[in-house]
Amino acid sequence: MAAKNLDTFFYPQTVAVIGASGRNGSVGFTIFQNMKRARIKKLFAVNPKHGKVQGITSYESIMLVPRRVDLAVIALPSSKVPQALEECMRARAKAAIIVSAGFSETGEKKATAKIEELLRKNMGTLVMGPNCVGVLNTANNLDTTFFERDRMSAPKKGTLAFISQSGALGSMILDWSGTQRFGISKFASYGNAMGIDEADLIEYLGRDDETKVITAYIEGVKEGRKFCRVAREISRKKPIVVLKGGRYESTTRATASHTGSLAGSAKVYDAVFRDAGIIQADDLTDLFAVAKLLEQQPLPKGKRVQIITNGGGFGIIAADQVVGEGLKLAKPAASTARKLGKIMPRATISNPMDLLGDADARKYEAAINAALKDRNNDIILVLCLFNLPTLDAGKLALALKRARKRSGKPIVAIAIGSEYTERRMNQIEKSGVSTFNYPGVAAKAISKMAQYAQTRKK
Amino acid sequence: MAAKNLDTFFYPQTVAVIGASGRNGSVGFTIFQNMKRARIKKLFAVNPKHGKVQGITSYESIMLVPRRVDLAVIALPSSKVPQALEECMRARAKAAIIVSAGFSETGEKKATAKIEELLRKNMGTLVMGPNCVGVLNTANNLDTTFFERDRMSAPKKGTLAFISQSGALGSMILDWSGTQRFGISKFASYGNAMGIDEADLIEYLGRDDETKVITAYIEGVKEGRKFCRVAREISRKKPIVVLKGGRYESTTRATASHTGSLAGSAKVYDAVFRDAGIIQADDLTDLFAVAKLLEQQPLPKGKRVQIITNGGGFGIIAADQVVGEGLKLAKPAASTARKLGKIMPRATISNPMDLLGDADARKYEAAINAALKDRNNDIILVLCLFNLPTLDAGKLALALKRARKRSGKPIVAIAIGSEYTERRMNQIEKSGVSTFNYPGVAAKAISKMAQYAQTRKK
Repeated sequence: MAAKNLDTFFYPQTVAVIGASGRNGSVGFTIFQNMKRARIKKLFAVNPKHGKVQGITSYESIMLVPRRVDLAVIALPSSKVPQALEECMRARAKAAIIVSAGFSETGEKKATAKIEELLRKNMGTLVMGPNCVGVLNTANNLDTTFFERDRMSAPKKGTLAFISQSGALGSMILDWSGTQRFGISKFASYGNAMGIDEADLIEYLGRDDETKVITAYIEGVKEGRKFCRVAREISRKKPIVVLKGGRYESTTRATASHTGSLAGSAKVYDAVFRDAGIIQADDLTDLFAVAKLLEQQPLPKGKRVQIITNGGGFGIIAADQVVGEGLKLAKPAASTARKLGKIMPRATISNPMDLLGDADARKYEAAINAALKDRNNDIILVLCLFNLPTLDAGKLALALKRARKRSGKPIVAIAIGSEYTERRMNQIEKSGVSTFNYPGVAAKAISKMAQYAQTRKK
Repeated sequence: MAAKNLDTFFYPQTVAVIGASGRNGSVGFTIFQNMKRARIKKLFAVNPKHGKVQGITSYESIMLVPRRVDLAVIALPSSKVPQALEECMRARAKAAIIVSAGFSETGEKKATAKIEELLRKNMGTLVMGPNCVGVLNTANNLDTTFFERDRMSAPKKGTLAFISQSGALGSMILDWSGTQRFGISKFASYGNAMGIDEADLIEYLGRDDETKVITAYIEGVKEGRKFCRVAREISRKKPIVVLKGGRYESTTRATASHTGSLAGSAKVYDAVFRDAGIIQADDLTDLFAVAKLLEQQPLPKGKRVQIITNGGGFGIIAADQVVGEGLKLAKPAASTARKLGKIMPRATISNPMDLLGDADARKYEAAINAALKDRNNDIILVLCLFNLPTLDAGKLALALKRARKRSGKPIVAIAIGSEYTERRMNQIEKSGVSTFNYPGVAAKAISKMAQYAQTRKK
């Protein structure tokens, strides 16, 4: 079966919001308001009650809209959705997002059956939802979600795609991502997946040049065989990281009432994901930490980590996390110890490599370069206490930029602190090195990256 | 042996900084500058080279200082420390903090032996360090650390005490704590522990009315028997949470070159900590998450958690973390389901209890009250998507405040987002409920709290 071209969801030129509203606070109001910011050619309001919606002419039905619609967003009570969808199909709309909830997830049968019937007729309209918040594209500011901008921040532009079966969870993550050092290319929430499902989205994003890594929150896979085929194909060229919701018998039950998913046992999913080359995340932080690493760093050749630090205790905590996550502490080569011993006689050239509290960017650069040349390690983990007066973050960022260009080893930097340190970490992140705050989060992500690298080799 | 009274470290009236400096950027400069902010009676500078230091008269030796000194802070090169310490003892200073590094942790023997000899003579001066950053007390703004205030934020006042063998790590944590929703009562870094050790500090903080929970970063315990005796006694009335640095064979070696600790095997420590009633943390986040919970919430009677949410996917993720951490998902009583089913016919009264996206504070309050009365659970976990327009954080905070007063069950709230959500979580935190951002962090902390509650019962 040919892949569905989902461009019409992410790059529509003409969009109609069915249920667009002038009543502040309503879903139809917020969607229409958010959509006004999108860089598209034409936005139409469809609402039988109003002559104008938010200053824009409103039509009684999509069939009266004077142009063919690329994307219709349906925000109506569930009982009215089937008719609206049928009209979208008759008007030859290329795609429709059904935001409305109240279908299979609540046990509702009539409206669900009608939508199923319309989809079986396959009148050429691609359908996403129902029970979802739709799509967001940072490239053209398209945003069909119904969250007010003053309640949530827009995600930064980046190259991580994120798909979420749950719309509210997806939106919450988009909001949170604004505070993190990674950006989003495209987002889609596909809800009950009556039309477009997670496999269609993964297939599409696998071919999307603006996406380097695909992240997903999935409660239940719609069609097992299709999912496996697609995931296996895409994961060969682009990493897919999945957080599975409902990982235990006692928690899978909840997914049925949430997105109508009939989730199989966690063990079955584990096997399917492994077989398909998917990286499984343990929680939300983990999902984006490993995705960020895979997006930014080259794959490591092995799992030996060299830690470089200006704080002994911090180094030991990181070393504990590295070992705890199944990675190995590298043993620096004798030549590395000799070379660095001459420059920093008091430093401990071991692992952690403790450059001591008075280390400056020059000493860091010497240590990083020596470690990059050392064949005894595969991954460099640089810890920084920016509170210490001798370490200049700007100079360190330049050193890390040179190191990043010179070497094929992944380089990760960690620092924790308040505003002062966070500003410095933003500088460091720009060097092309991946930055994290917590050693535990970083070590787990590095471990999963190393496992993925081994799988890819096979 | 009687407990050492460490009040003179935390509440000194007269302080002398030996090595106080006028040279901006030096350790002696920053310590003296930070100490000028402390609410003490008199601050003296000791420095043979200057007539005045930062505008304050400087003395050649502590022996020339016209008053008896409660606390001397020694910030000199290691070779000059023994003489300075001897002078402190002769001047009958009550306590001395040796900030200087370069002792047993670097293999230096001469200065170390001289300090040992002075300590054996026991001339009545209590000694902390060497190789530490000293103490901080949020009650009187006392701060002997050598970090510039524009590089690190001051911790908030609170009731968690924190002791850290590593000074730099301790300072980094103090800095970070300013961004978190918990506060610090007292901090001490004791470095090589030649005089005051972790057991002395735990004993002192165990009797400190301003401290509710003791947290510690420990690389190696100085005297095993003394530590066990003290920890066993204190942990009976006040929780002690410890992060052990060097938890594996490959990482314990690093502690020797850091604080000169001869760390025993991780298994021995695990047994000692368990026997002493100490809660062991797995990483930095965990250390303060569990301490914060123990500080703020009553101990749970069991480990059955009831989740209440307005976002289905968020509820499922939290449920996965709860089960993953060894806690149990409570099963709501039939009466709870009946009661709430009348108020919210569309909501899923199960676990997670999904109040749906249009839930307001009134529905939350009904659900929370029903859950608090329900005998089938021990802990209430409230998840909030504040991005959804119907949930008013102010009203929810009031409802949670009433709930907190009414019930003896721990109540925890979780939300993730950006600024909008963080501001709301600050409101919620004031209600007396404990707030977290990540379900994984919260679930792990709840699990450790439940384990501790069981241990305490015995």
